[in-house]
Amino acid sequence: MPHIPLESHLPGITGLLEYSKATAQPIRDLTQFLLRGPSSLTEAERELIATVVSHGNECTFCTTAHTAAADLLAGEAITAQKVKENIETAPVSEKMKALLHIAALTRQSGKSVSEEAIARAKSAGATDVEIHDTVLIAALFCLYNRYVDGMGTALPADPAYYGVLAERLVNHGYTRLPQGYEHLKK
Amino acid sequence: MPHIPLESHLPGITGLLEYSKATAQPIRDLTQFLLRGPSSLTEAERELIATVVSHGNECTFCTTAHTAAADLLAGEAITAQKVKENIETAPVSEKMKALLHIAALTRQSGKSVSEEAIARAKSAGATDVEIHDTVLIAALFCLYNRYVDGMGTALPADPAYYGVLAERLVNHGYTRLPQGYEHLKK
Repeated sequence: MPHIPLESHLPGITGLLEYSKATAQPIRDLTQFLLRGPSSLTEAERELIATVVSHGNECTFCTTAHTAAADLLAGEAITAQKVKENIETAPVSEKMKALLHIAALTRQSGKSVSEEAIARAKSAGATDVEIHDTVLIAALFCLYNRYVDGMGTALPADPAYYGVLAERLVNHGYTRLPQGYEHLKK
Repeated sequence: MPHIPLESHLPGITGLLEYSKATAQPIRDLTQFLLRGPSSLTEAERELIATVVSHGNECTFCTTAHTAAADLLAGEAITAQKVKENIETAPVSEKMKALLHIAALTRQSGKSVSEEAIARAKSAGATDVEIHDTVLIAALFCLYNRYVDGMGTALPADPAYYGVLAERLVNHGYTRLPQGYEHLKK
């Protein structure tokens, strides 16, 4: 049960974004820019970073939601699963392995991000902006995972919820739902 | 040395906010609302939450900066120091001890925030919003600490910098500096 009263039909982060709209707006804006804004990383690649961090933090809601979004964007359900199991043997590029490794280190602690991990990413072709965005996406999901689990939010009653949420995140992004799409919250 | 090229006169978070202005804006907005917006927690109390989390994450830049801000707001330099040493014996209210404990648990993991820790805060008079804001401030500083250290940012060459920064954070907040105050960045 959540630690504070949240709307019971809004599981995970969704109830918190409704509870505190003033803080929800900048959180949505930051996420929209990092995961959907202009980038040389694909949206699927950025969702993999969110997935790896949420999985490492054992946040069930965020891991399942972003796995579903990564799967929908990739058109298959193998890559995200393999990345969660083992970054180094997953079917992603060398650059993505290096960036996902940086994300996993960032999750542990900012101080864990080593010169070696950065050098590996750069020699695999990662740009400064890609390294920056990887660290900030990982840091953002350390915020999300703590917010969602620290407030004791509920999981959806029906696991099919994640498919609906992924469709929303892929087709409408992280900003507030436009008028007429409120049914997607259910 | 930072992992990407940042302006050398802008240490810690300040160089990152300059490097990536599109992500800086929502980060600034979220921080301004949580640490300076309307709240039943004082600004000094909210800076103590930021300080405890940054200290726990061993982020030197953030810990020093928010200790300086908390000290300036409180008009003394004892409380923040004592809170960093031991929340339970620090000279703060029972409610603040309970909230700082929740912040310390959130720092470890969202899953560490126990029913007991929440019940203690509620019985010490903490409101739902205070508990919400404590968890979200702690989660936000888990983002900041990872961003600052994960990018390998530099410490200020002159420790007096923190006093200037604290004055800025106390008197101008976390939003962008208004025109004419650019000298405060130096």
